[in-house]
Amino acid sequence: MDEFELIQRYFSRLGSARADVVLGVGDDAALLHMPDDADLAASVDTIVAGRHFPEASDPRSIGHRALAVNLSDLAAMGAHPAWALLSLTLPTPSPDWLEGFARGFGELARAHDVMLVGGDTTAGPLTVSVQIMGHVPRGTALRRGGGREGDVLAVTGTIGDAGAGLALVTGALATEDAAAASELRRRFEYPTPRVEFGAAARGLASAAMDLSDGLAGDLPKLAAASGLAAHVDVARLPLSRALTFAAGAQHARDFALGGGDDYELLVAVPPTHFEALGARAAALNLTLTAIGELRRGNSVQWELEGRPYVPAVEGYSHFR
Amino acid sequence: MDEFELIQRYFSRLGSARADVVLGVGDDAALLHMPDDADLAASVDTIVAGRHFPEASDPRSIGHRALAVNLSDLAAMGAHPAWALLSLTLPTPSPDWLEGFARGFGELARAHDVMLVGGDTTAGPLTVSVQIMGHVPRGTALRRGGGREGDVLAVTGTIGDAGAGLALVTGALATEDAAAASELRRRFEYPTPRVEFGAAARGLASAAMDLSDGLAGDLPKLAAASGLAAHVDVARLPLSRALTFAAGAQHARDFALGGGDDYELLVAVPPTHFEALGARAAALNLTLTAIGELRRGNSVQWELEGRPYVPAVEGYSHFR
Repeated sequence: MDEFELIQRYFSRLGSARADVVLGVGDDAALLHMPDDADLAASVDTIVAGRHFPEASDPRSIGHRALAVNLSDLAAMGAHPAWALLSLTLPTPSPDWLEGFARGFGELARAHDVMLVGGDTTAGPLTVSVQIMGHVPRGTALRRGGGREGDVLAVTGTIGDAGAGLALVTGALATEDAAAASELRRRFEYPTPRVEFGAAARGLASAAMDLSDGLAGDLPKLAAASGLAAHVDVARLPLSRALTFAAGAQHARDFALGGGDDYELLVAVPPTHFEALGARAAALNLTLTAIGELRRGNSVQWELEGRPYVPAVEGYSHFR
Repeated sequence: MDEFELIQRYFSRLGSARADVVLGVGDDAALLHMPDDADLAASVDTIVAGRHFPEASDPRSIGHRALAVNLSDLAAMGAHPAWALLSLTLPTPSPDWLEGFARGFGELARAHDVMLVGGDTTAGPLTVSVQIMGHVPRGTALRRGGGREGDVLAVTGTIGDAGAGLALVTGALATEDAAAASELRRRFEYPTPRVEFGAAARGLASAAMDLSDGLAGDLPKLAAASGLAAHVDVARLPLSRALTFAAGAQHARDFALGGGDDYELLVAVPPTHFEALGARAAALNLTLTAIGELRRGNSVQWELEGRPYVPAVEGYSHFR
């Protein structure tokens, strides 16, 4: 099967059919119709076998995650995802693998009304690069640098689960609680990008970013971009029962601070808007937990029971 | 150096500064301002070490080529490139390598007024994925499927040079003509995307595509998309003196038909418009050579000196 047939078979109609796609898969480039009075939002994220996921992962999970990490980037801007490009490098074109991958990618794309509009396939070590494009009403996008002194720092959902899920998959963590293990693995393999919440946070939150590298790695970036210090009460981190059961309280905090791949959103929100934003989260069946605040200064302080806390891990960093 | 520092150092200001970039490198996504009454054109292409270029290639050439192959995709649509995203997977972050890569990418980006607006870096086998975005006046983009019966088939520049250049690099071809060898290598390492010609062809050409996989691999796609047969006189293929010197007449044709990486444009143009299109090419110091025509039917016929000709190679195909 050559590249052309491969693309035709698995990728020519993936995701939702969108009326604003003038020309999709199959030409040199896609042609897309942007809404008026909107900014184009675009991002790319790549996941590499053996680095971001185990090589033997279920291809459906790989397809899901490759799109999810990109949807999460647009969620962090409050943007509406619309179109994706896929660059897939893989060692051999097994139909079973491609079918599973296309299923995972396609299910999540349809759930968010996203259409695959182009891409390429290449022989090589398994690497999945997705480019996502979407739009956001002009001038309303959320940014990392919009945080203001006194803003509440808050995160959606629970954090640390995906990191523990990966540790379970690789054998770095073990638990006898099968239900907890299953739930944590699911958080790693099928993360839920917070697209609806990101859009709902426009006009209320002053800054946002997604948690891909762990809170200890990501929060300093939001604080620095906003030109402020951050103060976090580690006791307030939202930890799932599954994580606390499987890892114990101490390690659960480590996963919440240093484990990546949660794809929850971190927001800075003025205290006067926190309740309204929490209500919007609740309407989406999502918790929003205050964990600290932005202060004058230029560092990140972690505190537990009134004492400085040193995160055991520094967040996911490539090239380590 | 972690990913964040790496991106900051080499990729935060690459290419032209563009006023329509609302937010560039450094947030979860880029924010871009599309012109009114334009379609968004978007494409992705990935090049893999050992597959699309030798691992030991000059990093400046790798940076140039990664962007050039994408610019060429927009050229084939007649679109104006504007913004690029870069996903770079590389084994180790050598500053020398990154500097060379950024130089090659940046020089070509500035030449086409393109700005790098985002991307990511990952540890792994050397793979470069570029997503290019641009715009084209609404409804005017060139497509593969627009060809009409009787259209002249024509190609820009000379073809086969890059394939021979790669063969010289890998040792599959040898020549004692140092000047020819140098010229052919340059065609492989620093291809020139025909962006200005693509835009100039709008309104005259009925179909276009870029020659990335070799004429024998690419022409059947244009013909099929247009629902027509193609007839090509192999004697009319534009071959450079360097190619004919280095490879001989017979092999020169093989490279022109089967060698990839030329990034010249293949167009279908009504006979009444051919002269005007040739004049636009000439104004860009580019040759435009008629090589055949589109006819009723559904196959591609190659002819040399009045007899059917069977290309020795079938165009570049992945997974072979």
